Amino acid sequence: MRKIIVQKFGGTSVADTDKIKNVARTVIKEKQNGNDVVVVVSAMGHTTDYLVKMAKDLSPNPSSREMDMLLSTGEGVSIALLAMAIQAAGYDAVSFNAMQIGIVTENVHSKARIIDIKTDKLKKNLQEGKIIVVAGFQGVTPDGEITTLGRGGSDTSAVALAAALNAERCDIYTDVEGVYTTDPRVVPNASRLREISYEEMLELAHAGANVLHPRSVETAKQFNVPLRVRSSFKTDNLGTLILGVDKMEIYKPVAGVAADLSQARIVVCDVPDTPGQAAMIFGKLAQEGISVDMIIQSYARKVSNTNDIAFTIDSSDLEKTKAALEELKDELKAGDIKIDENIAKVSIVGAGMIDRPGIASTMFETLAKLNVNIRMISTSEIKISCLVDKEDAKRAVAALHKEFQLESDEIAEVKGDLPNI
Amino acid sequence: MRKIIVQKFGGTSVADTDKIKNVARTVIKEKQNGNDVVVVVSAMGHTTDYLVKMAKDLSPNPSSREMDMLLSTGEGVSIALLAMAIQAAGYDAVSFNAMQIGIVTENVHSKARIIDIKTDKLKKNLQEGKIIVVAGFQGVTPDGEITTLGRGGSDTSAVALAAALNAERCDIYTDVEGVYTTDPRVVPNASRLREISYEEMLELAHAGANVLHPRSVETAKQFNVPLRVRSSFKTDNLGTLILGVDKMEIYKPVAGVAADLSQARIVVCDVPDTPGQAAMIFGKLAQEGISVDMIIQSYARKVSNTNDIAFTIDSSDLEKTKAALEELKDELKAGDIKIDENIAKVSIVGAGMIDRPGIASTMFETLAKLNVNIRMISTSEIKISCLVDKEDAKRAVAALHKEFQLESDEIAEVKGDLPNI
Repeated sequence: MRKIIVQKFGGTSVADTDKIKNVARTVIKEKQNGNDVVVVVSAMGHTTDYLVKMAKDLSPNPSSREMDMLLSTGEGVSIALLAMAIQAAGYDAVSFNAMQIGIVTENVHSKARIIDIKTDKLKKNLQEGKIIVVAGFQGVTPDGEITTLGRGGSDTSAVALAAALNAERCDIYTDVEGVYTTDPRVVPNASRLREISYEEMLELAHAGANVLHPRSVETAKQFNVPLRVRSSFKTDNLGTLILGVDKMEIYKPVAGVAADLSQARIVVCDVPDTPGQAAMIFGKLAQEGISVDMIIQSYARKVSNTNDIAFTIDSSDLEKTKAALEELKDELKAGDIKIDENIAKVSIVGAGMIDRPGIASTMFETLAKLNVNIRMISTSEIKISCLVDKEDAKRAVAALHKEFQLESDEIAEVKGDLPNI
Repeated sequence: MRKIIVQKFGGTSVADTDKIKNVARTVIKEKQNGNDVVVVVSAMGHTTDYLVKMAKDLSPNPSSREMDMLLSTGEGVSIALLAMAIQAAGYDAVSFNAMQIGIVTENVHSKARIIDIKTDKLKKNLQEGKIIVVAGFQGVTPDGEITTLGRGGSDTSAVALAAALNAERCDIYTDVEGVYTTDPRVVPNASRLREISYEEMLELAHAGANVLHPRSVETAKQFNVPLRVRSSFKTDNLGTLILGVDKMEIYKPVAGVAADLSQARIVVCDVPDTPGQAAMIFGKLAQEGISVDMIIQSYARKVSNTNDIAFTIDSSDLEKTKAALEELKDELKAGDIKIDENIAKVSIVGAGMIDRPGIASTMFETLAKLNVNIRMISTSEIKISCLVDKEDAKRAVAALHKEFQLESDEIAEVKGDLPNI
């Protein structure tokens, strides 16, 4: 039984015909290794921007159904071109869009979830020795409507295909050489992780290290698909393998340090200490589609019988949040609302911290030594996050990276998009 | 029961977002007339050229299956954009590609023929009051392979949809204002025909008046779909209605005059007068995919017991034809092969000539008066074609146009692509 490898190449990797030829070489190399290969590709480079621009020219608010029809054509172009490039190099290849395969999603436009993938056509073509090129990012509803999967869509397509085909591995080719212990632009001797668990990767992703969209990691975790993040350009570098914690060889207590500078903190002051106040606030925010990250409620003040409720949101949701709280004002009977955008969330992540006490106190001591003021703290089983002033974020990350011995002997080479610090 | 009108807009009509808005206005106007509207569009302007260029960058000879995958994305873009433009103007619209509808073709790439069109989805959406935008030029095989229909494909899609939906009419919007009695660039007072029969249109099309691809006219004739050729820009002009000869109100003996300057004449001299010689020549040419137009065999010469066989082909097939005849040389035992590219085919077409003798002789006399030498003659029920020297073509067309009283009082306005004289 031959092994199946699913490969995924993003828009920058197929941005022009020369790059498509390069991708064809990488694909063929995997085929020459004796594996069956299914390749998932995104739309070429700036195709999506170009299509969106035309749509906006025609309509201030184009229907999401027609946007999905429009955007899905982008992958239609790249799959056909990649199949041609593979054929030109002497290998048998065939391209399929999501409708042809049956990548079935729920009936929601612009951010559908995959509910089923038909494998008959894929298996038949693999048995015939063909390399299969599949359109990422898109799906089809049981009624034949074209959908798209939203952010991180092509990664999710690749992982879901790997799960459906029971693939040996899903390789995500990208601009970066793998997952690093922290942003190499901040800490030049950040080291590339050889392995990381799904859980750690998820926490790092949520903490701001946007190498992979959390959704694709969640899908990989759910179906236990080993995921490799590797460079499109340096294919001899094996990148980082993301897998179940039970399959990891070794891990340090802390796998990585991340910073998220795109948050804003809201404090609703003097909220009456009566039941249902927090539910009212966060219920309203949920209703408006605003994701809340850290939440802290102070001890009730005995004298005034009020609380302060503080929470963080993504800065892009700030205006919506202000408006939502404004609407609640009368009902809530709270005091001032304070907003602080000069903040950053610094997190350490590691599956190893579960059974090792003292990791949190080491983090706090490290920040104290730097004179970095901690505004809020939140913890999960494998993550500790501290809210600090924005200007302190870089030194905090560097010091924590050093303290938890994450440095490499080499200086990481930085290319393309990296975590947003 | 509301009437269904199928409209078709070519690539130039949807070349940019402003033009797409213009098309949306034309579509909505038909809807406002109280009709159900199905719109067929081609890919935007130069999209196809751009896609073909990328394909050629990747492969000297890309597979036709992948070319169809690639080219079909072009209409995917234009249908979604047109649906958005219609929605932005306040009308309900929905776009479908061929796969979604089920425009079923035979399993041949790059020039498939439509074998069936499913109408369930179309009828359901029309009943819901929606304007339907359909991708032209493409189809899907029963196995879910994407095909394209080849030259004249979008016109054919539109006519086939009109037939399947039992539409009132199929309107082909184009650069020209209709079908003219002859090329208005040659004869400035050529008149636009209000009506023309399918048969006449087919003969005019074959004779070089390339307003509509013969294939779409043949399909319209087969299913008796009234076809209107009209201008995308001057929508108050009703253009030319193409319909069954039985439904025409009146017709002149000659409907139009056409010239085809892209032919070459071949004469195979001294072919032995034994059975099977013509079959050998034309069998070989058919095998090579070369279409032969006029064929003339002279009376056998008693003395040498040989014939001259003359025929015309499209100039673009000249090299292939020479090679094919070269291969036959030994077997054929004929004499010299003479080639003449300095020729033009001038034709008069009219359903009215069937029951009016003397039309042919009027044509020959008209040419004789001009001192135009006739090299070959061929006739069908509704067409008479004469091969003349290329430099005589324009005067011949003008004189015949005048002789058969086809002149208009107005000077035709000439825009865009017109017949190739």
